[in-house]
Order: sequence, then C-alpha cells, then structure tokens
Amino acid sequence: MPAPTAGAAGPGRPRDAEVDRKALRAAMEIYAELGWAKFTLDAVARRAGIGKAAIYRRWPTRERLVRDAIEYALVLPAISTDTGTLREDLRELARSMMDHYLGPHGLAGLRLHVEARAYPGLFSGLSATIRRSRVLEARAIIRRAIARGELGERASPTLILDTLMGGVLNHVLATPEELRAEMAARSPRYVDDLTAFVLTAATTIYPPD
Amino acid sequence: MPAPTAGAAGPGRPRDAEVDRKALRAAMEIYAELGWAKFTLDAVARRAGIGKAAIYRRWPTRERLVRDAIEYALVLPAISTDTGTLREDLRELARSMMDHYLGPHGLAGLRLHVEARAYPGLFSGLSATIRRSRVLEARAIIRRAIARGELGERASPTLILDTLMGGVLNHVLATPEELRAEMAARSPRYVDDLTAFVLTAATTIYPPD
Repeated sequence: MPAPTAGAAGPGRPRDAEVDRKALRAAMEIYAELGWAKFTLDAVARRAGIGKAAIYRRWPTRERLVRDAIEYALVLPAISTDTGTLREDLRELARSMMDHYLGPHGLAGLRLHVEARAYPGLFSGLSATIRRSRVLEARAIIRRAIARGELGERASPTLILDTLMGGVLNHVLATPEELRAEMAARSPRYVDDLTAFVLTAATTIYPPD
Repeated sequence: MPAPTAGAAGPGRPRDAEVDRKALRAAMEIYAELGWAKFTLDAVARRAGIGKAAIYRRWPTRERLVRDAIEYALVLPAISTDTGTLREDLRELARSMMDHYLGPHGLAGLRLHVEARAYPGLFSGLSATIRRSRVLEARAIIRRAIARGELGERASPTLILDTLMGGVLNHVLATPEELRAEMAARSPRYVDDLTAFVLTAATTIYPPD
C-alpha cells in the first residue's frame, strides 16, 4: 500500500487534496496543543470539520497521520533563503522562525523534540531530519556571507545561528501567555533588533579577511 | 492537609528526607523523559527504588507529586548570581543553563512549557513562576552591570538574555543525540565563546554612558 502523501488525489476524487490539507493542518494543531498522548483520529476529524471516514480512508493509523502532518508542517516549509546579503538572510531566517512559533503549530517543533525521547521509534527519525535541514540551511547562509566577503573565512556558523535562532525561541518562551498578542505585534521590530545585535557581534568577531 | 514538601520528615521518621529526595528526583526524570501522559506513581517508585507505599503515603495523587517534583527541580535551584562583573555573571548564567539542559531532567523545562497548554490547570501556574524567576534573575544581572558602569543606562536586558539563554538552548536542541557526549565535553569552551560573543554585541550597542 503506498504511503499517503499531502495532495495525493485518486482519479475521480477531485476534492481529496483539499480534504487532505484540512486533515493535516488539524492534525498538526492537535499534536502541537495536546501531544501524542491525546492525539486521536477522532479529535483530528472533529477539528478539521470532516468525516471520520475520510480520515480513516487515507490514514488507517494515528501513527501514519501524525508523521505525515509533521512532515507537512515542519519538514516541507524549510526552504533556503538567499537574499544576497547576510543581514537580510539572517533577518529572513529570524522572521520565518518567529512566524512559525507564533503560528497555529508553533509548539509542534519543541514538542517533537521532547517526545522523540519518549517515543523514539515514532519520532526520532523525523526529529533528526528537521534538525539536519535547519542546520544545513543556516550554515549555507554563513558560507555565502564568507564567499561574498562579509565575514572572515574562519567565521563559525554555530554562535551566529545559536544566538539568532535561540534568541527568537527564548523570546517566545519568556513571554507570558497574557502578553503574547503584544509581543506578536512588536515582533517585526524585535526581529530587526535581534538581527542587528547578532550581526554586530559576528562582524566584530569574524571581520572579513 | 498540609502540602507535602521536599525534606519534610515527621518525628520518628529520620530517613524520610532521603526517601523524599529520591522520589522527587525519580519523578522529575520520569516526567522529563515521558511526560505527564506516562507519569505514574508506580513508575516513579520503580525508578526511585523505593516502595510504592512510601510514595503513596507522601503523595496521594500523581498531580501532587509532579508539582512538588517540578518545584524541587526547576523553581528552587534558580538562585541569583552576583560575581561582580558582567562577563562572569553572564558566563555563570550560561553555564548553569547548560548544566541543567545536559542533566538528568534537562527536558523538563521545555516539556513543562509545551504541556502547560494541554494541561493548564495543572501546569500553567508553575510554568509562569519559573519563567518569572528566570526573567527577574537575568534582569538583575543587567541592572547591576549598568550600576557598575559596564553598560549604558539604556541597555535592554531582552536582547542580551535572549541571545545568551536562547543560544545555550539552541545549541543543545541542534545537537543530535549521537554527538551529545562530545558536545557536553566541549561545553565549557562553548559557554566561554558564547559569553564573549554576546558581550561583544552588548558593549558595542550599549556602551557605558
């Protein structure tokens, strides 16, 4: 039996792709909010506003559905950003992480990380794939900056990216629920300031050769 | 009925404090690894190597035990660091966070954050307390640095602490399981480099007035 994939629609079923997307989005929300312990096909069907039969037809088990949903929400969107300057690349990376954390499944990545320990067979592979794709994307930003002469040859991506990506994450984690809307409204300014802060350290510590 | 607390030993029960500590440590490990869904008094008793009766006598419900364990592991250790210089205060803060994340319940804080959404009645208050105590501790570091003339009056704690604390967190999250031991061995060097990186940006952007 072929693995179900987002957007896979059989002949004569023209609306399948839309139903799939609804199911995957609902699945990701349920997983992000409640985690694997409370993840059921019933809950997903209710949240998606589609029939249980439609879910069961595509995903016979909750394991298949959660893995497809994580892939749909966390693996596929990770596309590389090449704006032509280090500042814009970093800003774009920070902005996309902020959007993700403030979005409907912002907790999903963190949850996946903590649950990979409890359910390694189900989640370790996906968790590693996401981690790898983020690290590779982020390293490419620094490599391009070195190639353009914006940073010295020995510039290490580690500190630049830990402070930028971790900065966004810590900012979201440190904000209490009741100040979340205010923080979201100010987030474009925060992303600018964070980018400038990290860039100052990077260009001072790793000046062009 | 008074709430059970770590170290509370009644008269004629001299070994209670040690049993309590074992139970609380085991509870925190189980919670960090498996989360609330798989958190049972039985599992804690097995992990702690003590009788189920001893656990039940002190904590009649798993809710009471998990809250005491989180308080024991995450709230109480948050003590303020005042070394006399900004560099040492920041290094100490980064080092203590790294030690926490690499320790036996390093995932507990993240798990608490994601589970506070699923079980708000149980976890929101504790999560907010921990968040508040960390933010206050961290802000005090910046306030002292301004008072000593190491940073300008308008230095904002937000960026300095997001990049430092988030940097450590991202470093741990970005490291695959199989490289964890190597990362732990290099962590003192990483903490020094991260501190220097953040300090460079902070003193450049917020120079003393």
